[in-house]
Formats: sequence, C-alpha cells, structure tokens
Amino acid sequence: MLIDKTIKENLAPLFDPKSVAVIGASNKWNKWGFSTFASIINSFKGACYPVNATEKEVLGHKAYPRVTDIPVDEPVDLAVFVIPPEAVLPVMEDCVSAGVRAGVIITAGFAETGPEGKRLQDQVLAVARKGALHFIGPNCMGFWSASCNLKAFMFPFPVLEGPIAFVSQGGNVGGAVVRLGYDRGLGFYRYVSCGCTADIQIEDYIEYFGADPNVKVIFAYVEGLGDGNRFIDKVRRVTEKKPVIALKPGRSVPGCKAISSHSGALAGSSDLYDCAFRKAGVVRVDTAEALLDLGFAFIKQPLPRGRNVGIITPGGSYGVISADACASAGLNVIELPPETIDQFDRIFPPRWSRGNPVDPAGDRNFIAYMQAPDLLLKLPEVHSLIFMGFDSFSSFSSFFPALNKDLARELGKHVREFSSMIPEGVDDNNGNSDRKWVGQVVGRIASVFFSFFGTSSPSEVAAFGRTQAKFLESGNIGGRMEKKLLQVLKSGDSEDLEKIGGLFAEILQPLMEVLVDTWIENYQKPVLTTSFVGTAPKISDLGHYPYPFAEQAAGVLAKMVEYREYLDRVEAFQERKP
Amino acid sequence: MLIDKTIKENLAPLFDPKSVAVIGASNKWNKWGFSTFASIINSFKGACYPVNATEKEVLGHKAYPRVTDIPVDEPVDLAVFVIPPEAVLPVMEDCVSAGVRAGVIITAGFAETGPEGKRLQDQVLAVARKGALHFIGPNCMGFWSASCNLKAFMFPFPVLEGPIAFVSQGGNVGGAVVRLGYDRGLGFYRYVSCGCTADIQIEDYIEYFGADPNVKVIFAYVEGLGDGNRFIDKVRRVTEKKPVIALKPGRSVPGCKAISSHSGALAGSSDLYDCAFRKAGVVRVDTAEALLDLGFAFIKQPLPRGRNVGIITPGGSYGVISADACASAGLNVIELPPETIDQFDRIFPPRWSRGNPVDPAGDRNFIAYMQAPDLLLKLPEVHSLIFMGFDSFSSFSSFFPALNKDLARELGKHVREFSSMIPEGVDDNNGNSDRKWVGQVVGRIASVFFSFFGTSSPSEVAAFGRTQAKFLESGNIGGRMEKKLLQVLKSGDSEDLEKIGGLFAEILQPLMEVLVDTWIENYQKPVLTTSFVGTAPKISDLGHYPYPFAEQAAGVLAKMVEYREYLDRVEAFQERKP
Repeated sequence: MLIDKTIKENLAPLFDPKSVAVIGASNKWNKWGFSTFASIINSFKGACYPVNATEKEVLGHKAYPRVTDIPVDEPVDLAVFVIPPEAVLPVMEDCVSAGVRAGVIITAGFAETGPEGKRLQDQVLAVARKGALHFIGPNCMGFWSASCNLKAFMFPFPVLEGPIAFVSQGGNVGGAVVRLGYDRGLGFYRYVSCGCTADIQIEDYIEYFGADPNVKVIFAYVEGLGDGNRFIDKVRRVTEKKPVIALKPGRSVPGCKAISSHSGALAGSSDLYDCAFRKAGVVRVDTAEALLDLGFAFIKQPLPRGRNVGIITPGGSYGVISADACASAGLNVIELPPETIDQFDRIFPPRWSRGNPVDPAGDRNFIAYMQAPDLLLKLPEVHSLIFMGFDSFSSFSSFFPALNKDLARELGKHVREFSSMIPEGVDDNNGNSDRKWVGQVVGRIASVFFSFFGTSSPSEVAAFGRTQAKFLESGNIGGRMEKKLLQVLKSGDSEDLEKIGGLFAEILQPLMEVLVDTWIENYQKPVLTTSFVGTAPKISDLGHYPYPFAEQAAGVLAKMVEYREYLDRVEAFQERKP
Repeated sequence: MLIDKTIKENLAPLFDPKSVAVIGASNKWNKWGFSTFASIINSFKGACYPVNATEKEVLGHKAYPRVTDIPVDEPVDLAVFVIPPEAVLPVMEDCVSAGVRAGVIITAGFAETGPEGKRLQDQVLAVARKGALHFIGPNCMGFWSASCNLKAFMFPFPVLEGPIAFVSQGGNVGGAVVRLGYDRGLGFYRYVSCGCTADIQIEDYIEYFGADPNVKVIFAYVEGLGDGNRFIDKVRRVTEKKPVIALKPGRSVPGCKAISSHSGALAGSSDLYDCAFRKAGVVRVDTAEALLDLGFAFIKQPLPRGRNVGIITPGGSYGVISADACASAGLNVIELPPETIDQFDRIFPPRWSRGNPVDPAGDRNFIAYMQAPDLLLKLPEVHSLIFMGFDSFSSFSSFFPALNKDLARELGKHVREFSSMIPEGVDDNNGNSDRKWVGQVVGRIASVFFSFFGTSSPSEVAAFGRTQAKFLESGNIGGRMEKKLLQVLKSGDSEDLEKIGGLFAEILQPLMEVLVDTWIENYQKPVLTTSFVGTAPKISDLGHYPYPFAEQAAGVLAKMVEYREYLDRVEAFQERKP
C-alpha cells in the first residue's frame, strides 16, 4: 500500500468507481467473462466497457479490443480481469498507461500455484504500483459495494444491503455467508473475495471498513496472514471502535494442508492466530453459522457487562439444555438471590423451578411469564438474559385448527369487537397513527388472549394491558408494526380457523418483540431470544433474530463478553497512560 | 413391569388401543383437558369417551361423570388423565375396577415436586399394578402412535409418520424434535413424552421399540435413569439390531441442577452416563440438531467401516472447513495414494488441490467432478465420502436471471427439443414409463447442460450421457422422479428466465441424487452430501438430506463409526463364546 494517501483515498476508485472495464467480457455461456460481465451490468449504473479482442459487442454493450482503445475523457476507474493468467501482465501495463486507478483480478494461477505463479504475481504488482493502481486478488471471486450498487461477481447471487463489511479469503465460503445473510435478513455494505492479496491485504480492507461510518460490524474469513504484526497494528485501532469477527479455519493438520493447497497461505499455528487475534481485539469463531449469529447480535444488542446469565424458559427440558449450553460456553448460570425467589414465588405456582433457569413448569399464566424478565434484568448481577418464548407463543396458532366451529366463532366475536374499535383515519399509511390508541387496543387484545389461555385474575389482566399500553405509548413501537397490527385487526374473519391462529401469532410476535426491545433499552443488557425451532428465521422488522437453538444464543453471549472484556482491557490500558 | 408377559403384550393396549377415555376432557379453552381431548378426537378413529363430572357433552362427544359410568361391552383400553394431582389416585381406582388396561397421566405434581409427590406417585403405581394397568407419566405431555393414528398430546402439533421411535424425558424438547422432523421430512412411528416414568421406564420403551419391525432407529432424550444396570441390560439387546441415539444433557453443574428441578431425575455424573451408554451401545449426542442429523443418516446410509474419509468440494475454502470439521470430529482425512493423484491429474486441470479434500479449483468440467467420487470410493482405505455439490449445482439457477433474452431463447430451444422427444403415452401417471427411454433423455439433457457449462470434449459428454442412461435404466430412478422430470420437460417454456433456471435445478437435483444412490449402493459406503447453504432442507423423494454445513456431515460420520465400532466389539465378543 502507498503511504502518501489515506486508506479511504487509496480505495475510493475501487469501491466507488464511476466507470468499469471488464477485460475478458464474453458472450460465451461457459466463460467466467460472461457471468462476471452479466453480474456487473445487471447491478452497476455507471459506464460499463467490455474489453474483448474479437467481439464487436458483448451482451449489448460495444466492446473494445484493449483498455487503451476505450474512448473516454477521464480514465476508467476500475478494471476487472477475467482473462487467462498469462494475459494479466500485459493487460496491467495497458491499464496503467490508460490511467486506470483500481483493479479486480479474478484470474487464478498466481501465488497459490507455487513459486512460478508467485513471480508472475510480483511482476503484475510491480506494474500496478508504478501506476498507483490498487487491486483485489488475483484468484478471487469478485466484490460488492453498496455505495455504488456494484456487484462484480464471478457468478451473480443475491446480496442484501446492510451494515456489515466482509473480507473473505475464500470466495465460496464468503459467497455462502453473504447468501445466507440474504436469506436471513443480514445485509452487507461491502463484500470482498480478496483472493491471494497480492496488493491490498486483509488488514487494509479492515482499516478501510473501520473508517466508514456506514459499517457497523466487520467480518473476515482468514486462512492465513502475510504479516501478523501489521495486522495486529492496523486492526486493533479498528476493534476499539467496532467489532471484527474472524472465521479462521486451520485448527487441524488436514485443515492447514487444505489451506496451503487452496490459498497458498501459511496457515500457521492455530494458537499463534488465537494470540494475534486476542492482541488485535478480534473475536474468533469456528463456523459460518457462528459468524452470522454474532453479526445479528452486534448490530442489535448492547455488550454484556460480564459472564452472568439469566435464563427464562417455558419448559424444563429447554431450560436444562440452555443451562448446559451456557455453562459449556463459559457463562455463569447464576444462583438467584432469595428476594428474587420470593418475587417469583408470588407470581408462579409452587411447582416453578425455584432457580435459574426460571421455569414456571407449564403454568399458563403468560402475564407472569412476561413479568419474569424484569425480575431478572433488574438484578445488577445479571449481565444478560436468554429468553425463550418467541416460537412457543407463535405455536399457539396450532391450537386453532383443532377447535370446533362454535368456539372459533366465539373467539371471532372478540376479534371483530376490536376491529370495530378502530376509528376512521388511523390507518393513514404513514405510520403516524395515534400511538396511545394503538397501545390501548394492543393491551386489550393481549388481555383477551391471556384470559383465554392464561389462568390470570381480571386485575392481573388489566394491569398487563396497562403495561402494554405504556410500552406502546412510549414510542417503542414502530410504524410498520402498527400498520401490520391494524391490518390484522381489520381483517377479523372468524370463519377460517387457521387464519385466526395465524392472526394471533401475527399480533403476539411483534408484541413480544416490542417487549424485548423495551427490556434491552431499559436495562442496557442483551436479551437474546431463542425459539428451539431449529429453522433459521428471517430477522424481523424490529431487528430481532430468535436463535434456532439455545446453543447459538449461549455462544453469541460468550463471544460478546469476550469483546467487552477486550474493550475493558484497552480502556484500562489507556487510563494507565500518563 | 410385570414379567409374566412380553413387553409387546404389556404395551399393546397403550400403543394400539381400540377405545380411549379422557378424564378431565373439557369444553373450556384454558384447560389442558380441552386441547388434549381436541388432539385425540382429531386423530384417533376408535371410540373416544370424555369423562367430566359436570359436562353433559365435550366437543360434541357424550360425556360421563366417571370411567365406571361408560357403558361398554369390553372395558376401555386406554385412559388419559388430565385432572388435578389429588384426583389421580381415586380415578386410578376407578380405572382398575372398570378394567382399563393402559394409562397416560399428563397431570404434574408427583415425584418431580419432592417426597410428598413421590409418595402419592407410589400409591397410584400400586393401584395400577393391582389391575395390571401400565401407564405413561405422570408429568408428561402425551404420546403418538402411528399404528392407530393416535395423537394424545397436551397440545396438538403436526407429526410425520416414519421409521423413528422416540422416548423423551422432556415434553418440550421432545415435541420440538418431532416438529422439526415434520418440517424436514423425518417421520416417527412412536413418540412418547415419558414424564416421571413411575411405571414404564425408558429402557422398557426402548425394548418395545426394539421388538417392532416398523421401527428402524430409536431416539431417546434422557435426563436421568432410575436403574443404570437394567438400562444397559435391556438396551444392549436392542442396539445389536438397531441404533439407539441418546440426547443426554447434564454435562455441566447448572445443567444437572436444572435436571433435578425439572424431572426430579438424578442427573448423575456425565462420565458415568458416557460409560453406561458405551456399554449399552447407545450413541450419545449433545444437541437436538445432532439427533436429527444422525436419524437421517442411520435410515439412509450403510455404516462406515472405519474413520477414513474422502472429501470432494467445488471450492477450496469449503474444503478447508470440511477438513477441519472432520479432523475435529475424530475422522482421518487420509492422504491419497499416488495412483489416485495420477487419475485426478488426468481429469482435472493442473491447479487442482492434488490431495484430500479433492478440489478441482474452479474447473467447470462437471463431468470430471461427477467422476471424482468413484475414484475415491473404489479405494479400500476410504471408508466414507463427504460430497459437496448439491446446492452448488442448484445454484446455477442463479445464472439465468442474469442472461439476456437471446441467450435464454437459445437455451429454450434445446429444452423444447427434448420436450418434442417425449413419445405419447409415456406420462401414464403410474410411474411405469419406459425406463430406458427416460434414461436416454436424462442422459441427453445432462450432456447439453454440461456442454453449456462445462469445458468437456464431445466424447466425454457422450460417455457421461451413456453412464447416466445406464444408471437410470438399471432401475435406480423412482417413478416419482420420472414423472417430475417429464413434467419439467413438457413445460419447456423458454421465455420465463427464472423458470428455466429452476427447471435445470429441478432436473439436476434428482440426477445428482440418483448418482449418489448409485455410489452408496455400489460401494456400500456412506456418501454424505453437504450444501453449505445453512438452511435445513427437506428430505428428498429419494431419501437424501444434504447437511446444511460440513460440520454436521462430519459429526454424523464420526457417530456412525462409533456405532460400527461397537457392533464390531459385540461381534468379536460373541465369536469368543464357546
């Protein structure tokens, strides 16, 4: 990297180009130059120039034999190389003479193949340096930049825009993670398949992402680093401000061998990497799933102050598995103080677990259940909460198909009653409806729901309704949820049994999420929900991601604590300075 | 358990009742007696009698004040208890005098609550024993029996019928696993939430499942065992014939505490359980996900002869992660013999990984890729294979939306060409179409597909087509797949780009599965596929379940080896007998 410019200036032509030339762009289906060019023209709105020695036109765009033939006033910003390795050096010469400022070398056959490939790579690098041209790769699968909507991929796949930036030393694993993010609602601001990192190093990308206010969390898939000290030096300045999570394989001998044949990187001792990451404040994970899981949490949740966790579960066996998972992740499933046990004694039947995990043992008083988080979170010694209940509540919808018509009709009456309560003009499509009113309605719905399924007294129900209304009035409820709710309320068709089931699930799910948001905000402690449904959900409108299994929630909390402890150490260190 | 009858005779009235009485059946929504009775009448086709002291009718069925009031020629087979704990003892007396032969006590408040509850439980047991009445529970969530379509659940949820039998000491975890199975295509022949196991013990259920030819694999969620030696003694006779997989929590102190407050079981030392399970030949897993993962494998795959695994991957980084996962699961990612490397040298470009994991490093010759498994599986030292490619192939569908209209139309022509090749009368809706013909068509489709995307020579393509046709002619392809294929072929609409993409995915997916089936059959070795898509798929028509991550496939293989090693030890032991 040149040092006379900032990292932002250096990489601006790469991540925010005005024009792109694709060298090797092709009309032939079985060429990577076809799919790469298709990927670019289907996303990027700037100028796209196919460069092809023989074709006059590629996918409807006028083609040029060489980069130097492109007739432009200003040089092309970015050149994408999809050509055989032996052609890369002369084309790089062309790019430098044409004044191209950035490159992506998708072509493989360089350092990863051995000393000869490394020599060729060094020659390409030397030419690029001459022209102050910075490039991704070689041997990569392309990149994504949200700021200019450029998807320069070897083969296109969907990407969701969002606050994550990701540099990956594996194009397949990287692409899979980005695609998984798309499925689950986790979005990316940048994604780079960095390949052999001849020019721009992993730590350079991280430095660049660190300086970008649009990026909240940084992911890295690291097979091996070129210069560990440079990595630590650059990355620790980033981790002081935002989390960097690294998926680093190579804990085993076969894994290290596979790394050397894949990226040509020296996998190095796994312990050495542990040490480097610890110094740099990087959180290390072992699976793609853990990378995603932690991404959701770092975006949504505050950092826990310590390792003490409270667990609330609607079922004893869930609690057992959650407690095991927390303990094996290094969290403390703390003992409850006697006052707290007394408080739970007052709201739960005598058969409740009388300890942490808090389990009302099949009690159907859901008002008490929803009061439980407050009783734990208010304890200073509880640093975070795992709260089960998302899917458990939704699953009440399974009741409805089992009902007889008469009972369904009776329930339908109540739904219609609420429906008729909706004043004119509330559903104004801009989310600015009367919060107070919506709060009251939601409170009432919750009350009726709970009086159907719960064993609560009328006064408890009324109290719960008031609490709900207060939450909603306080503005914690977003406009989108209100609209959804109003829509559900207005439909109110009692005849379709399954629809009624879904209707309650639709009301309860956002209601639960509003509550969880309120707990997070009031206590500034992470509240992770887990569904035990096994199926990865999509992140909700309010940003919630119920982890499919308790093991995942526990793993996430442990890694968040690790990052928090690092920040505490850094702060302590800084305080010690004169 | 009485010993004068076989376990099958003892439990027949429970799992195959002709009539069911539900004591505590209720019209009131917020009663478990409501949802339990609804669950039963919506599934069971035999006689159902609600027993309720005050109601004349429950959900449309005539109600009786006591079991003894039910006017029947033959006694009721099964009584389900959904009443307060203090009412259980007198009702059990009633059941015994009425000649009821089996029971399910859903009611909680017995041994799990302490010594007083235990005393009550013992009294109930003594009465039941008097009448030779065997019962599930107390403190359970019900059971499912496929042979009589009886779903006696506290609250109903969907169950898929299939070859698994499952006894669970946790109703919530058990229910979640069964529901997950439903989502993913794993079916159950029996499922029992066994509660406090006052009468029928976990090992009794396992013995019963072991004797049933409809059951291929047994699951158990175990919090604690009453009599470890009895468990070992009974269960090891089962594991000699079919696999038993136990999810056993309690590896941590908080986990053990949670167990004691949940089921009242003595969790015991986790090492002791490891030892007992090893003696009994039970495979222990730590997560619900692992239980399901292993279930799929034991149904579909032969047992591996040892720990040596081959890995084939379309991407280097996938290979790295797979190799790490295998090594950390205790598998050997073996070195390839020089002859095998020579063979791969002949079909792959020089940049291939030249080792295990086998990675053609972005080569687009898919014929070579599909030849790779044979080259590994034929080695005696390779005991199993992890094969990536399922979703990688499907994901080619993502190409199509990126195409321009002209190219799509060109591809469409080929699809129509095949479409016109379909002779009249082939699509006869009974699956008895001409296999030879379908084989040829599929072979041709594969050829065209590979010539589009591959870099193969025409002779290679033709050879591949012939191989495909041979597979299909040999009858490995099921009727359902043929029909699907014909349907896809006949639709042949080239204008809708996304549809064409999906069309190829639809053809390729079953094609791949037929190939995998052939490898499994030819070599009698497990071939596990993994997609790296993160999202749990549904099991396919041909019984395939591509594991969402390589870690899962590796974990499954390691547990299968463990079971195989147990069987080898048992055999060795038996051979030593005089």
